[in-house]
Amino acid sequence: MTRIKSAAVIGAGVIGSGWIARLLLNGIDVYVYDPSEEAPQNVDKVIENAGRAYKKLLTPDLPKRGSLVFKNSVAEASKSADIIIEAVPERLSVKQAVYKEVEHSAKSNAIIASSTSGILPTELQAEMSSPDRLIVAHPFNPVYLLPLVELVGGSKTSTKAIENAKRIVTEIGMFPLHIKKEIPAFIADRLLESVWREALWLVNDDIATTEEIDNAIRYGFGLRWAQMGLFETYRLAGGEAGMRHFISQFGPCLEWPWTHLMDVPEFTEELVDKVSNQSDEQSGQFSIHELEKKRDDNLVDFLKVLKENRWGAGNTLKEFEDRLNKTKKRTDFAKLDLTAPLLTLKTKVLKEWADYNGHMTESRYLECFSEASTEMMAIVGVDEEYISSIGSYFTVETHIRHLDEVLIGERVYATTQVIHGAGKKLHLFHYLYHNDGRLLATAEHMLIHVNLETRGASIPSDLVINRVECVHEAHQKLKKPEGLARAVGDKY
Amino acid sequence: MTRIKSAAVIGAGVIGSGWIARLLLNGIDVYVYDPSEEAPQNVDKVIENAGRAYKKLLTPDLPKRGSLVFKNSVAEASKSADIIIEAVPERLSVKQAVYKEVEHSAKSNAIIASSTSGILPTELQAEMSSPDRLIVAHPFNPVYLLPLVELVGGSKTSTKAIENAKRIVTEIGMFPLHIKKEIPAFIADRLLESVWREALWLVNDDIATTEEIDNAIRYGFGLRWAQMGLFETYRLAGGEAGMRHFISQFGPCLEWPWTHLMDVPEFTEELVDKVSNQSDEQSGQFSIHELEKKRDDNLVDFLKVLKENRWGAGNTLKEFEDRLNKTKKRTDFAKLDLTAPLLTLKTKVLKEWADYNGHMTESRYLECFSEASTEMMAIVGVDEEYISSIGSYFTVETHIRHLDEVLIGERVYATTQVIHGAGKKLHLFHYLYHNDGRLLATAEHMLIHVNLETRGASIPSDLVINRVECVHEAHQKLKKPEGLARAVGDKY
Repeated sequence: MTRIKSAAVIGAGVIGSGWIARLLLNGIDVYVYDPSEEAPQNVDKVIENAGRAYKKLLTPDLPKRGSLVFKNSVAEASKSADIIIEAVPERLSVKQAVYKEVEHSAKSNAIIASSTSGILPTELQAEMSSPDRLIVAHPFNPVYLLPLVELVGGSKTSTKAIENAKRIVTEIGMFPLHIKKEIPAFIADRLLESVWREALWLVNDDIATTEEIDNAIRYGFGLRWAQMGLFETYRLAGGEAGMRHFISQFGPCLEWPWTHLMDVPEFTEELVDKVSNQSDEQSGQFSIHELEKKRDDNLVDFLKVLKENRWGAGNTLKEFEDRLNKTKKRTDFAKLDLTAPLLTLKTKVLKEWADYNGHMTESRYLECFSEASTEMMAIVGVDEEYISSIGSYFTVETHIRHLDEVLIGERVYATTQVIHGAGKKLHLFHYLYHNDGRLLATAEHMLIHVNLETRGASIPSDLVINRVECVHEAHQKLKKPEGLARAVGDKY
Repeated sequence: MTRIKSAAVIGAGVIGSGWIARLLLNGIDVYVYDPSEEAPQNVDKVIENAGRAYKKLLTPDLPKRGSLVFKNSVAEASKSADIIIEAVPERLSVKQAVYKEVEHSAKSNAIIASSTSGILPTELQAEMSSPDRLIVAHPFNPVYLLPLVELVGGSKTSTKAIENAKRIVTEIGMFPLHIKKEIPAFIADRLLESVWREALWLVNDDIATTEEIDNAIRYGFGLRWAQMGLFETYRLAGGEAGMRHFISQFGPCLEWPWTHLMDVPEFTEELVDKVSNQSDEQSGQFSIHELEKKRDDNLVDFLKVLKENRWGAGNTLKEFEDRLNKTKKRTDFAKLDLTAPLLTLKTKVLKEWADYNGHMTESRYLECFSEASTEMMAIVGVDEEYISSIGSYFTVETHIRHLDEVLIGERVYATTQVIHGAGKKLHLFHYLYHNDGRLLATAEHMLIHVNLETRGASIPSDLVINRVECVHEAHQKLKKPEGLARAVGDKY
């Protein structure tokens, strides 16, 4: 099975809309069925949130967005989809009725994935004519940002269906956690349920308000759990003696009379009121939409931090970006148009690039130019492999002119002209443009080829020299850049 | 009560050492008693971790580190301390014995704070002669980074003791959560206990391994809990209908047969083995020290993200930094030594500043020089307040010479010479040195004073002009920098 082209989503509530957004932004066409009149509008809002978040999250460009089509029935939505995602209310009979309709029209090799957060796949598939392709794929809100998806097969689910589901969710940037033994509520929701139950007791008994409980989480162990789970965190609490030491100390506490968990708080009108009122007091100053934006901003930044630190969910993001980058092809050197400066950078000015003056800060200009130099090096053959085995170019001198401002969120690109290239020397001139064509800045760089073992100047490989000379010869015919060879202050 | 000067910490395990590190780095002298011979060495390691983390976390400088003194008894350690923190094993009799000794020697107005994670303060203070000053201050590992501290008073604790404890922990960058009703295990550990119990069941029944459970947390809801807690997250899951809608949907699930929580897993040798072995398989490739560094790096970056986004624990960090900034003094302009270039930067080359060539990447050089320019601006009076009301200097031209390499972890500093300063112009020449004295790079900048409303060139305030001219006049007598006014390629 190759990369999927289309998906159906049955039910467009919070979870269904999250799936739709993630799929669409990954270039997959999505057919949706939801009987509610408000569904299209709600879906649009979630897609907008997702688009906003991805713009901040991802360095590479996403593929062209898929098309979104609302259909009038489950059968019509399912007809040509490679995967059918069911996200209807948590009632077995409702779900089974959906599968019946899906099976009538779906392609024979399409996967049917339930978003249920608790019902066993064996029960879900009980009345299906081809139960082997039914799998639970349980995601977490917001589906377009949180990588986790729990995959659970039922007794009749085929290995192939599980493998295909893994591949499909990985492809769209998610982290599949295959749960090998069926259990109601799977893993994450069992943990969440236990906390939820305890938290309700605390509110019920007036030990703490909803806000105090939330603060006990997010100022403390919540910060640990975003990166390590329960066991790895406790491993650290045991000090160098590790897990065995910790568990032998902490284990017995389980039998302490520390918890109400042996009992279930009764769900009285009074308790519902108490929780709702406390929650209003805690968060009521923000609309849900504002809270969603805040949550997404934080999630985006956490994921970027984890990517930078090569840890946990950041690894999933890194692999996703690598896949996106791989599909980006570099033009063959022989086919490059050398009658103009070469395109060496396309990027967006991210929020975190701003300085206290409210525009792109000066060191980010050099970061852009540095990336343009790296791309220029890759064009002439100094790529990752070359750097690890032969050498690299080091910048020895830089001159930057700032000509115009660029604001956060705007797009820029760079072009590069080779001024001189021979032997160990590479003299570059970069132009940084706003997408509207304004020249923002220029940078002139002298680079020297260096042997990374001796850290001394050295001659590049024949291939690199030939390419450098080839570009240099062509670029000599171009107009000499304005500001070339200028010293700081010449103009002032 | 004014800012505290000294603290005693009784017991220097993981939690005690964390307290020690946080206090010391906040400029507070700490007297420690711990009978273990290894204590000083373990404490040193934690202080080193904390120092490393704070360097990355905090923008302002911390006050001069407090002094650390190990004492030979509880009484000696407690003698002159403003607060005595008890962090000994979780046995009531052991803790009560400590308080007896503390009360013999402590100052009458000193607070006594227990780090217990579960014992009621009313029980802790039962045999004390001045029980009003006993309070529970329950922190979370790593104490030097996680802001949460649960404050719980017993039946005899005074309001004054609670208020003083709040003030003291806030002063050292923590978030006090005052729990108004005594309950065993307080809030956070009750929630943790419930998850821990459920997780052990999952391992016990072979539903999931420790690694799978950790992944179910950190790829999913853990990312939510680092910023919002349980209730605020669920408020979002209810969509615009909010908490009441969510809870009326989700509430009934509590009565589903979803959990083993009605029972307690028996703590057999077999279960201990299983958990320890799975944990080794999951995390055994890292030493505890490596995991601690990774955890701290992630925590530091999460806290920075939250500060940037003005949310949750980031607000605590922001307030902490604001307090530190207020106490930081800049040398009076009149007292500056203008017979040499001015010191404008002292920093360390951080890990994330490396490029693929294994040394500080070129854009970080400009970041250093940019910070040096910012400091130079602040010296002549262009500080935050000036920028928000009058204007700022924008860099219009830059020339950088790279003369030597600098590796990760090494320290550098910058000095700045004013080449010319008059009217709207400010012409600077920065030197970046390795701490061993090697000149690493130079940067020449032309800056123009700009009115931030019109975004056009403008004349600075009289104070700024006077100072700029004053430095310029003095610096004219200095040697003209080598490489001044040079264009890229002049030398090559």
